[in-house]
Amino acid sequence: MLNTFFAKEKMKEFLLEDIGTGDLTVSSIFREDVKVSGEFIAKAEGILCGIEIPALVYEILGKATFTPFVEDGQKVCKGEVIGLAEGSVSTLLTGERVVLNLMQRMSGIATKTRKAIERLDDSSIKLCDTRKTAPGLRLFDKYAVKTGGGRNHRFGLYDGVMLKDNHLSYAGGLKEAVEKVRYIQGQMVKVEVEVETEEQLLKAIEAEVDIIMLDNRSPQEIFEWRKMIPDEILVEISGEITMENIHKFKGCGAQFLSMGELTHSVIALDISFLDAVGEKKI
Amino acid sequence: MLNTFFAKEKMKEFLLEDIGTGDLTVSSIFREDVKVSGEFIAKAEGILCGIEIPALVYEILGKATFTPFVEDGQKVCKGEVIGLAEGSVSTLLTGERVVLNLMQRMSGIATKTRKAIERLDDSSIKLCDTRKTAPGLRLFDKYAVKTGGGRNHRFGLYDGVMLKDNHLSYAGGLKEAVEKVRYIQGQMVKVEVEVETEEQLLKAIEAEVDIIMLDNRSPQEIFEWRKMIPDEILVEISGEITMENIHKFKGCGAQFLSMGELTHSVIALDISFLDAVGEKKI
Amino acid sequence: MLNTFFAKEKMKEFLLEDIGTGDLTVSSIFREDVKVSGEFIAKAEGILCGIEIPALVYEILGKATFTPFVEDGQKVCKGEVIGLAEGSVSTLLTGERVVLNLMQRMSGIATKTRKAIERLDDSSIKLCDTRKTAPGLRLFDKYAVKTGGGRNHRFGLYDGVMLKDNHLSYAGGLKEAVEKVRYIQGQMVKVEVEVETEEQLLKAIEAEVDIIMLDNRSPQEIFEWRKMIPDEILVEISGEITMENIHKFKGCGAQFLSMGELTHSVIALDISFLDAVGEKKI
Amino acid sequence: MLNTFFAKEKMKEFLLEDIGTGDLTVSSIFREDVKVSGEFIAKAEGILCGIEIPALVYEILGKATFTPFVEDGQKVCKGEVIGLAEGSVSTLLTGERVVLNLMQRMSGIATKTRKAIERLDDSSIKLCDTRKTAPGLRLFDKYAVKTGGGRNHRFGLYDGVMLKDNHLSYAGGLKEAVEKVRYIQGQMVKVEVEVETEEQLLKAIEAEVDIIMLDNRSPQEIFEWRKMIPDEILVEISGEITMENIHKFKGCGAQFLSMGELTHSVIALDISFLDAVGEKKI
Amino acid sequence: MLNTFFAKEKMKEFLLEDIGTGDLTVSSIFREDVKVSGEFIAKAEGILCGIEIPALVYEILGKATFTPFVEDGQKVCKGEVIGLAEGSVSTLLTGERVVLNLMQRMSGIATKTRKAIERLDDSSIKLCDTRKTAPGLRLFDKYAVKTGGGRNHRFGLYDGVMLKDNHLSYAGGLKEAVEKVRYIQGQMVKVEVEVETEEQLLKAIEAEVDIIMLDNRSPQEIFEWRKMIPDEILVEISGEITMENIHKFKGCGAQFLSMGELTHSVIALDISFLDAVGEKKI
Amino acid sequence: MLNTFFAKEKMKEFLLEDIGTGDLTVSSIFREDVKVSGEFIAKAEGILCGIEIPALVYEILGKATFTPFVEDGQKVCKGEVIGLAEGSVSTLLTGERVVLNLMQRMSGIATKTRKAIERLDDSSIKLCDTRKTAPGLRLFDKYAVKTGGGRNHRFGLYDGVMLKDNHLSYAGGLKEAVEKVRYIQGQMVKVEVEVETEEQLLKAIEAEVDIIMLDNRSPQEIFEWRKMIPDEILVEISGEITMENIHKFKGCGAQFLSMGELTHSVIALDISFLDAVGEKKI
Repeated sequence: MLNTFFAKEKMKEFLLEDIGTGDLTVSSIFREDVKVSGEFIAKAEGILCGIEIPALVYEILGKATFTPFVEDGQKVCKGEVIGLAEGSVSTLLTGERVVLNLMQRMSGIATKTRKAIERLDDSSIKLCDTRKTAPGLRLFDKYAVKTGGGRNHRFGLYDGVMLKDNHLSYAGGLKEAVEKVRYIQGQMVKVEVEVETEEQLLKAIEAEVDIIMLDNRSPQEIFEWRKMIPDEILVEISGEITMENIHKFKGCGAQFLSMGELTHSVIALDISFLDAVGEKKI
Repeated sequence: MLNTFFAKEKMKEFLLEDIGTGDLTVSSIFREDVKVSGEFIAKAEGILCGIEIPALVYEILGKATFTPFVEDGQKVCKGEVIGLAEGSVSTLLTGERVVLNLMQRMSGIATKTRKAIERLDDSSIKLCDTRKTAPGLRLFDKYAVKTGGGRNHRFGLYDGVMLKDNHLSYAGGLKEAVEKVRYIQGQMVKVEVEVETEEQLLKAIEAEVDIIMLDNRSPQEIFEWRKMIPDEILVEISGEITMENIHKFKGCGAQFLSMGELTHSVIALDISFLDAVGEKKI
Repeated sequence: MLNTFFAKEKMKEFLLEDIGTGDLTVSSIFREDVKVSGEFIAKAEGILCGIEIPALVYEILGKATFTPFVEDGQKVCKGEVIGLAEGSVSTLLTGERVVLNLMQRMSGIATKTRKAIERLDDSSIKLCDTRKTAPGLRLFDKYAVKTGGGRNHRFGLYDGVMLKDNHLSYAGGLKEAVEKVRYIQGQMVKVEVEVETEEQLLKAIEAEVDIIMLDNRSPQEIFEWRKMIPDEILVEISGEITMENIHKFKGCGAQFLSMGELTHSVIALDISFLDAVGEKKI
Repeated sequence: MLNTFFAKEKMKEFLLEDIGTGDLTVSSIFREDVKVSGEFIAKAEGILCGIEIPALVYEILGKATFTPFVEDGQKVCKGEVIGLAEGSVSTLLTGERVVLNLMQRMSGIATKTRKAIERLDDSSIKLCDTRKTAPGLRLFDKYAVKTGGGRNHRFGLYDGVMLKDNHLSYAGGLKEAVEKVRYIQGQMVKVEVEVETEEQLLKAIEAEVDIIMLDNRSPQEIFEWRKMIPDEILVEISGEITMENIHKFKGCGAQFLSMGELTHSVIALDISFLDAVGEKKI
Repeated sequence: MLNTFFAKEKMKEFLLEDIGTGDLTVSSIFREDVKVSGEFIAKAEGILCGIEIPALVYEILGKATFTPFVEDGQKVCKGEVIGLAEGSVSTLLTGERVVLNLMQRMSGIATKTRKAIERLDDSSIKLCDTRKTAPGLRLFDKYAVKTGGGRNHRFGLYDGVMLKDNHLSYAGGLKEAVEKVRYIQGQMVKVEVEVETEEQLLKAIEAEVDIIMLDNRSPQEIFEWRKMIPDEILVEISGEITMENIHKFKGCGAQFLSMGELTHSVIALDISFLDAVGEKKI
Repeated sequence: MLNTFFAKEKMKEFLLEDIGTGDLTVSSIFREDVKVSGEFIAKAEGILCGIEIPALVYEILGKATFTPFVEDGQKVCKGEVIGLAEGSVSTLLTGERVVLNLMQRMSGIATKTRKAIERLDDSSIKLCDTRKTAPGLRLFDKYAVKTGGGRNHRFGLYDGVMLKDNHLSYAGGLKEAVEKVRYIQGQMVKVEVEVETEEQLLKAIEAEVDIIMLDNRSPQEIFEWRKMIPDEILVEISGEITMENIHKFKGCGAQFLSMGELTHSVIALDISFLDAVGEKKI
């Protein structure tokens, strides 16, 4: 379920960005409101995400409703009607672009996630996202990854500890850094450490961190290092893993694989809105 | 110049999204603040955009400064240092991800724009963007297109009239729609009409619109139709034009070509932040 | 149509300004809510504007509805009932002042606009507004001008280019300024130039700007200069045109006349709210 | 002193309204920032108000400063330079309109207030404002009345009790209403009652309210009724008092006279901004 | 009546603080929404306050309603069911904590207020609050004091004048300070002065302030000083009056007694939410 | 370190709540600003928290600075000067109450936390907070617990999973609920389960949750149950543990003890602000 409480506040902001002081076109043409209907149609195959967006937009703008024909996470074909909008022509036309911009991005992320999982083809490795989301859209981007079958890594700097190279060098070493964190942070906080060398790996194991992230390692290295890590510590791999090379990590033994491009390099899934009149159906 | 007045308010929001109630990692390790420096480095070739972002973030978080080494719109090489950050280690590490997420997206858009212009290879046709931007990021997305050498189409529904199929069918015809707009809207508002058939084209010419958008037409059709359009009316082409087929529109005679994927399908330009200590330079 | 999406957010702010931590009077007297009705009555003749405001306020405060008896732009007589409010006495009394303050101002602007058009008495010249609106009220002020029969000039610095004296002197001349604008801004942006001398006028014509504004010129000068300007360029006049001298510009040949006082010096149209009980009708 | 803490937040909003996604004109022409200076000049005689506004705007936009030559409440002559702006040409030109719109309105209110006091010509009667201010501008409107020599009535529904006709009819009578208020509200809250008949007057006196407002009474009636009111109760007059008839209330014996038009019908005081270069072409 | 217009905006903020990017627990377990019901139950005896809070929260989150069984200000027993929630299990469980946190605090304040009034046992002295409220919660804290039978002192620095030691020393004396205030502030503003010595008391009486606050005086001193103060001036006592010593001020002759700890040191009244299913009632 | 980025935005809101449209007292008396100094003094023994608050307030209001003499978490004695404020008398007096309200609450929480730890007297059990904080103040309340030596439990519903009775009954059992969470949530999310019976305890152990919370159990039961729980699972106790009975849990074997009253029932630590002039020191 999309967190609609939070999403709705964001949608207001997005609508304001597009509508501003008014939709010059719609307000010129439609002096009186007419009731119409229109369909949202997938223009390419992919995993749909954001099916709750039209209803949120219509709730904000008023005078229109949306009936979904698919659910988030469902595969849609080219030409498939994904939902029906009914109501004020002003609302439908004025809200169209914001709905599409968001749904296309979310569906693009879900589709890419599903594809990456298929290419990885190893159900013992969970694919997960990163904090490399579009600024202001993390809620939507991360929801889309989950919809595509992926997992969410931490949402921000506030809900998990990740010790990276830069942190470690200042803290006087890995062990000291982990100790400081354990001393300061509460019991609900997991601690993950990024390691690049075998020396760091051993220190991380000794420090009994919750998760070890093997950064920029080859599948072979990962496979070997994995054996040294006790079962209580989760293993994540990351760093320069792409749609092109993800299949090489199959069977490497890691439990999690995080990939920045799921959200930082998104190809929108083409969706269009077709007004019934535009189609001359009436 | 980026509109920093507006951008700064957005940056606060983006930082809040990532930092939330606090950076658990940084606040655990750095009990006392130390002054450090770090470099932003391009990890791939492209057109840089967003060089003012680090300074804005440091101004908000406080206690750090940024010295840019390149300007927006400049081509950067893989490995090129694009700027130097100096100041509080907390500010640098806590602000890092938001800076990168935005700069990478903006540079990705600028790079794609430049590439599209090169592929089009026709300086008589100006490449321009659409309203298909990431929700909440229109200011940045459109600035990036401009930085890459493109032009901005209207910013939203509020600063220009665009009559599309759906509008026209309700308005009782193209002529009536244009008349209504001219009657209602002020003299600073331009009127663009999307046409798909020759019949519509002739009506649009007759209605003396400011811009005619030929939607989903082949280069050949455009070339022919172009001849019918008087000089006073600008000609824009759009619809299913992609990086793959853009070169076919060279010499088609249009003055503007708008392409949604410039902003809806962005490949981030890889940029990283390297802390001096992390590199053991000190 | 008033942009109610935007207007509603502003109304919340306006209500908060007046109500703050609570209506001390109403909350003291009405421990239990009673349902009442009341009429909004014009206390002077004029053009009504803002008839959607009461419904917006009641939607925000809850528990009351409004039935309008007139439409925006309609002439009302002294004593005419313009609408009926029904619902919670708290909502009606607490929301009264904000409704009236806004409706009176908007109606004042619409009335002044209509009067100016009548005094100008030249339908070939469109009367238009400026950016000289009350801070924070531009949406309402400009809507009121339109309601009164006027046109809207650009809404802000963001939706049109206006080159004034100060801009030109820095830009190295009119031609250079226009070129820079054309180079930077998109095809939807119109360029207007303010000219005060014949030399500037010729340069503006040469630069093929969209609109020339003749600033502070006498009707006679305007009439003469008008002849030099080609048909493709629109002509606007402005500067020290007031309700007292506007009739002198009749027949001057300009297409647009903009007047700051429409919105910067507003005489409120008197409207009052009469509670049924206050009138002892029940 | 203007409440700059509050005012600054409002100024941000006002600037956003005018600048939006960017000043198209300024950002096209000034690719590099230049330092200039300019003068704010009164174009008509009046009472200046809002001299702190330019500095607030420049603080928000950055890179410019303001040196005032007059103080709020001071009389300025036509042509008088009221202050000097120095700094970035972008800041000066982009911020100009918002500064002027607000300062002109505030000075218009201060000037009208001073004039009304002069016409009343009775220092025993304090002129005061009402809640009939422009929505969103109450802070500025009421400050301007004070600057012009007037007094502030309550700021909103939250800082004083005013029992009007409508309230009284529901509350079961004046006495009951006052009792309810005294029972519910704290000791810092004053209670004012609007009376229109002698019967109401006697009841208000009996209820020992803090202030009696004689609504819509003739100077003669006020004079007579005044004698019945004990010294502990303040007397305010209101209702249909205008610039035209205010002199008739001289010597009527009231202590306060409130007048809605001070803020609901404002004639802006003309002020202009003259850029040094624009005038001197340096 | 709670000012629900204002309260609702605050509730959104409070819910956002707790829910953030989403309720991880609820969104994991409840893929489909089920309708349930649950009871709010007092776990200790006290004065209930905030009974409108659940409905406000459910209105924001949607899909649930609340039926109150008690009114604000009513005494509740341990185990008493105070209201019934019905609707979506997500809404009920996600909103639970915010509802309880606020209702418990408000009821804690109301209970303490009632208790303090009982201990004081002198109906001629009204117990009132101060500005020592939890930041951001003044509306709720002060409403709770009123609900408990207390009175509200001024709400903020903006709705009443209180001259304290620090103010007086700068103003050149009490008389001068009062004169300045009377000269600047309007007729609706009451002036209270804090006095600690007999000399100050006499000056305050001479200055004809509205309220004299005797600060940190013994009941005996208050009793004596009270006699010197004319009837027109209200007398408030304050300073180091606690639940432990409040009974000593019985019969001291003051009309108001303000006590900071009513709101700065609150013991929450225990209230719990019991889900019907959790109790296996269904 | 307090998260000053977030805290500063909250402080603006708190100041607005108190100052509103203006400090009537200060703005009446101080027509010209004078520079003064004043001390913040602890009026009771306790653990100080919030020493960064004055500087944040002065940064917002401008024209004053703060020099701290103690650090957060340090014990202060009655009468101890904790810091020096210098600057504009307006800023110091207008900002005083908000600074004190927040610092007193935070210090009250830190003091209570320290006291609870001392009473528990078992360093193997970490004392931690809950989500029972004052709405809108979670950042400050939780920071204060940490300052007092406690730990932070999860910050909201968004950064940790806690399965309680109500959740479990709907989910079809503990095992199913944990499985659903593990399936949906990412690897950084810890899962805690509240258990009240031995049967639940065994199921929670079997489900390999991260933390088991023994709710409302006696020290003896906890001691026994503790033995059944494997080392990998952390043990937290909660429910009706108060300052009065906390010492009984010494040696019970739990690793964490959470106590709602640390933040829901706070006794403010008395701190006052003494202006140098008020003390006649100058």
